[in-house]
Amino acid sequence: MTAQRMLTGDRPTGKLHLGHYVGSIANRVKLHHQYESFFIIADLHMLTTKNTREDIAAATQNARDMVLDALAAGIEPERATFYLQSAIQEVGDLNTLFQNLVTVPRLERVPSLKDMARDAGKDEMPYGLLGYPVLQAADILCVKAHVVPVGKDNAAHVEVTREIARRFNYLYGDVFPVPELVQAETPTLVGTDGQAKMSKSLGNTIALSDEPGVVRKKVMGMYTDPNRIRADVPGTVEGNPVFAYHDVFNPNKAEVEDLKTRYRAGKVGDVEVKEKLANALNAFLDPMRERRARYENDKGRVDELIVDGTERTRREVQQTVFEVRKAMGLTGVYTQIRRKAERSRSASATA
Amino acid sequence: MTAQRMLTGDRPTGKLHLGHYVGSIANRVKLHHQYESFFIIADLHMLTTKNTREDIAAATQNARDMVLDALAAGIEPERATFYLQSAIQEVGDLNTLFQNLVTVPRLERVPSLKDMARDAGKDEMPYGLLGYPVLQAADILCVKAHVVPVGKDNAAHVEVTREIARRFNYLYGDVFPVPELVQAETPTLVGTDGQAKMSKSLGNTIALSDEPGVVRKKVMGMYTDPNRIRADVPGTVEGNPVFAYHDVFNPNKAEVEDLKTRYRAGKVGDVEVKEKLANALNAFLDPMRERRARYENDKGRVDELIVDGTERTRREVQQTVFEVRKAMGLTGVYTQIRRKAERSRSASATA
Repeated sequence: MTAQRMLTGDRPTGKLHLGHYVGSIANRVKLHHQYESFFIIADLHMLTTKNTREDIAAATQNARDMVLDALAAGIEPERATFYLQSAIQEVGDLNTLFQNLVTVPRLERVPSLKDMARDAGKDEMPYGLLGYPVLQAADILCVKAHVVPVGKDNAAHVEVTREIARRFNYLYGDVFPVPELVQAETPTLVGTDGQAKMSKSLGNTIALSDEPGVVRKKVMGMYTDPNRIRADVPGTVEGNPVFAYHDVFNPNKAEVEDLKTRYRAGKVGDVEVKEKLANALNAFLDPMRERRARYENDKGRVDELIVDGTERTRREVQQTVFEVRKAMGLTGVYTQIRRKAERSRSASATA
Repeated sequence: MTAQRMLTGDRPTGKLHLGHYVGSIANRVKLHHQYESFFIIADLHMLTTKNTREDIAAATQNARDMVLDALAAGIEPERATFYLQSAIQEVGDLNTLFQNLVTVPRLERVPSLKDMARDAGKDEMPYGLLGYPVLQAADILCVKAHVVPVGKDNAAHVEVTREIARRFNYLYGDVFPVPELVQAETPTLVGTDGQAKMSKSLGNTIALSDEPGVVRKKVMGMYTDPNRIRADVPGTVEGNPVFAYHDVFNPNKAEVEDLKTRYRAGKVGDVEVKEKLANALNAFLDPMRERRARYENDKGRVDELIVDGTERTRREVQQTVFEVRKAMGLTGVYTQIRRKAERSRSASATA
C-alpha cells in the first residue's frame, strides 16, 4: 500500500514567526513523518487579496523564505515535496471545473472569508476570494491528498473540498479520495505587545529567523502587567504574555513555577523574568538556526527543492487532470472530433 | 494594420432554429465579413448549468451541429476560426487569474444570471454560474478580441469583460484591447405556438436543419387568431405568429400585404396563409440546405475545421497567457527560482 498523502502550505506573504510555529508548523513537522507530504506555496491564493505587481514581485523571496523556514523548523526535504502553485497551470483548469460543483450560498457560509476580505481592506468581496475554498479544493484534490491538517480557521474550507470531492465522485465516478481533516490543536500565541494574536501586520512578532540579539531585544520590550510599576509590587501572571511564552517555550517547568510564585509575591524583577524567557526562546530557536545555516550554506538548495518539487507535482497534477476530464467525458468530446478529422485526412491522403 | 477581431459563439446545447437566426446568426454572418472571426463552442460554459455525463456526452454531436448550422447559415470557413473551449486548458488559468479583478456584488448586478439559474432549475446560484461573465472575459480576452456583437441579454456580460480588461491593464500594463460592444438588433422571434419566444425547451421551434416537409407540417400546425373559427370570420393580424413570420421571412411584401388585407376582411383561409408561409420559409432555408448538404458530403470537414481552429486558437491563447503572466510578474517568480536552481546545479557539476 502506498503511503497516505498530506497537503499543507501557506501563502508566500512573509517570514514565519512563533505564532505560526505554535499554530501550524509544529504540527506539520510531527505529521510529515507519517504521510507523504506536499507543501504548497500558495501564490495564486495570495492573489485573492494581494495582487499588485509589488505583491507578486515579493513572492519570489517570500517563497524561498517560506521553504527555508519550514526546513529550519524541522521539515525534512526527503519527506516533503515543496511546490509553487502558480507554476502549475493545470490548477486553473481544475478550479474552473470545480466551480460548478458548489453554490454561492454555500461559500457565503464559510465564516473566515468575510474576515479575510475585511483584513485585506476590501469593501466588496472579490469573486476570487469567495472562491478561495474552491481553489483550495483544486490544490488538495490535484495531488489526491488523503489528509489535511486543519485548525479552527480552515476546517470550514476543507469541508468544502470534501463536498466537492463527493459531488465529483457522485456525478462522474470515483476519482478522488474524500480527504480527512486532521484536527490539530492550534493554540493562538499572543503578540509581544499583549494583543490577542501574533501577526506581522500588527508588528508584534518574533520571527523564526530572528537573530538571538533581536529575540532578546524584542523580549525585553514585551508587554507585561501594566499595574506593576516596581519589582516589589505583586503582579498578575494570568494573561501576561511573558508568562504565556514561558509556558509554551521554556521546558524548565521548575524555573517557570519559581518565577510565577515570586512574580505574584512581588519578589522578582521584570528583567530577570524576561532574560530567562529570552534564554529559553533562543535555546528553542537554536536548532532551527543550525538547520537554517546548513541550508543557507548549501547555495541554491532551496531553489532546487522548489523546482524539483514543482516539476514532480506538475506531473501528478497533469495525471489527475487527465483522469478528471476522462471521468467527466470532456476528453471524449475533443478526442472523437479529432479522431474523425484524422481519419478523413488520411482517407483523402490515400485517395 | 491587422484586421480587427471578433468573438462570437454559443454553448453546444442543440441545433439552431429560426429564433437563433433572427436573434444572432444573421448578424454574425454579416459581421464576419468585416472582422477576423473566432467562433467559440462554449462547452465549459455549458457546464455552469448542464454538467452531467449525459450533458457532456451530447456536446460532441452538438458541437458538430452547431458548426454545421453556422456554415449552412452562411459563415465562410475561410473567414472564421471555430474552436472547442474545453480543449484549451489555458482558459482555466486566465479564468482563475481574472477572478480577482471583479467583485461578487458586481457580478450579482448582472441581470441575466438569475434567470439562467432559474431556467436551469437551480434553487441556489452555482458559483461557476455567477462567474459566467468572468469565464466569458477569459474567452474574449484570450484571443484579444476587439469587438463582440451583443444583444440585450449579453451586453451586461460583456461590460464585465471591459471592466476586467481595464482593471488588468491598470494593474499590470496594457495587454488587452478593451473590446467594443457591437450593439445588434436582436429581435425576438415568437414561437410557433404563439408563446413569446422560440425556444427548444418549449418545443415551439423550426430548426434551420428541418426538412421542407417538417417545416410545412410545423407551419400548418401554427397558432393563429384563436377567435377566427372559420375562414369568413375577420381575423387579427397583429400579434399573430403566422404574420410575424411572414413579415420576417417572406420577401414578397405585396403578397404579405394582400394576405393581411384579406385576413382582416375574412376573405382568406388559414390554409392559404400558412401554405404561402411554408413556401417562403422553405425558399429562405433552401440555400442553407444546399450549403449544409455540401459540407455534409465533404466527410470529416466539420471535424477538421474544429480541430484546425482549436489548434490555431490554442497557440493564440498560449501566447496571451504568456503575456498575462509576464505582465503580472508571475512568470518571474518561478523563472528566477528556476534559474538560480540551474546555476547552482551547473556549479556543482563543474566543481
